[in-house]
Amino acid sequence: MAYDIIIRDLSSKASQKAIGTDKGLAKIGDGIVNFAYSVAKSIFLTKNSVNKKIIRTGKKVNKNILADALRKANLKIYAKTRADAHDLADTVEALVAYVWLIGKVNLESMIKIISEHLSGDLQSRTEETKNATIAFTKLLDYIKNYLPKSKI
Amino acid sequence: MAYDIIIRDLSSKASQKAIGTDKGLAKIGDGIVNFAYSVAKSIFLTKNSVNKKIIRTGKKVNKNILADALRKANLKIYAKTRADAHDLADTVEALVAYVWLIGKVNLESMIKIISEHLSGDLQSRTEETKNATIAFTKLLDYIKNYLPKSKI
Repeated sequence: MAYDIIIRDLSSKASQKAIGTDKGLAKIGDGIVNFAYSVAKSIFLTKNSVNKKIIRTGKKVNKNILADALRKANLKIYAKTRADAHDLADTVEALVAYVWLIGKVNLESMIKIISEHLSGDLQSRTEETKNATIAFTKLLDYIKNYLPKSKI
Repeated sequence: MAYDIIIRDLSSKASQKAIGTDKGLAKIGDGIVNFAYSVAKSIFLTKNSVNKKIIRTGKKVNKNILADALRKANLKIYAKTRADAHDLADTVEALVAYVWLIGKVNLESMIKIISEHLSGDLQSRTEETKNATIAFTKLLDYIKNYLPKSKI
């Protein structure tokens, strides 16, 4: 695998929590999560623009969106015990970075899954929170297949 | 091209400033720049670790690093007139997003160029600023080939 050098301690034999609570992986994952969401949101907004306007946008994905998506995808087992929303969001970022680094899920697939599962009026903050959570839950449902299963 | 829908107004006929000063592109580019640097820095630190320790890390790339790289790569023509460091950094982010979205430069190539041109002790902030600037200048030298040349 291409990035084996920086994840060789987190092989398929690593435990769920070893990957999901890795602070370095979470830091790496922050950028890819925000980038994938920015592109996906821009595609969604442009496709649904009433006046065919091209909309390019981007911002940090809210921690609560990622935390809720982890809960809904039943992946809390990857997070640390008594994790708060911030910890759960870090776990999402770590898992996304992991599947990218092991070469199992590329950026294009992530963008496709997120953009295809976005819906509603994303200019409304409440609606964006709800609908982006659904899209990230779908992403996690997909990457779940490439995560290690062992608890210890 | 894959992401034509969100950049069809910025074709090869678009001007240098139209691309380099696009706020939406800069927002999209923020994530990819930080992600590429995090992976590249992790690879560099791991390869040069004295005790063969695996180091995963990541943080936002300092605006001054990106601004200086733009100046050194002679790409200030893409930035707005009387741009400050923040504007110049935004231009770097916009250019990086652009070449990725038009499918000319993939993430793996960006990471490779940055990691291969990093050097020195990146734990020292002064040294990191200097050496990351060199690495980003190399990245810009490379992506320069895929940017539009027309000024107007």
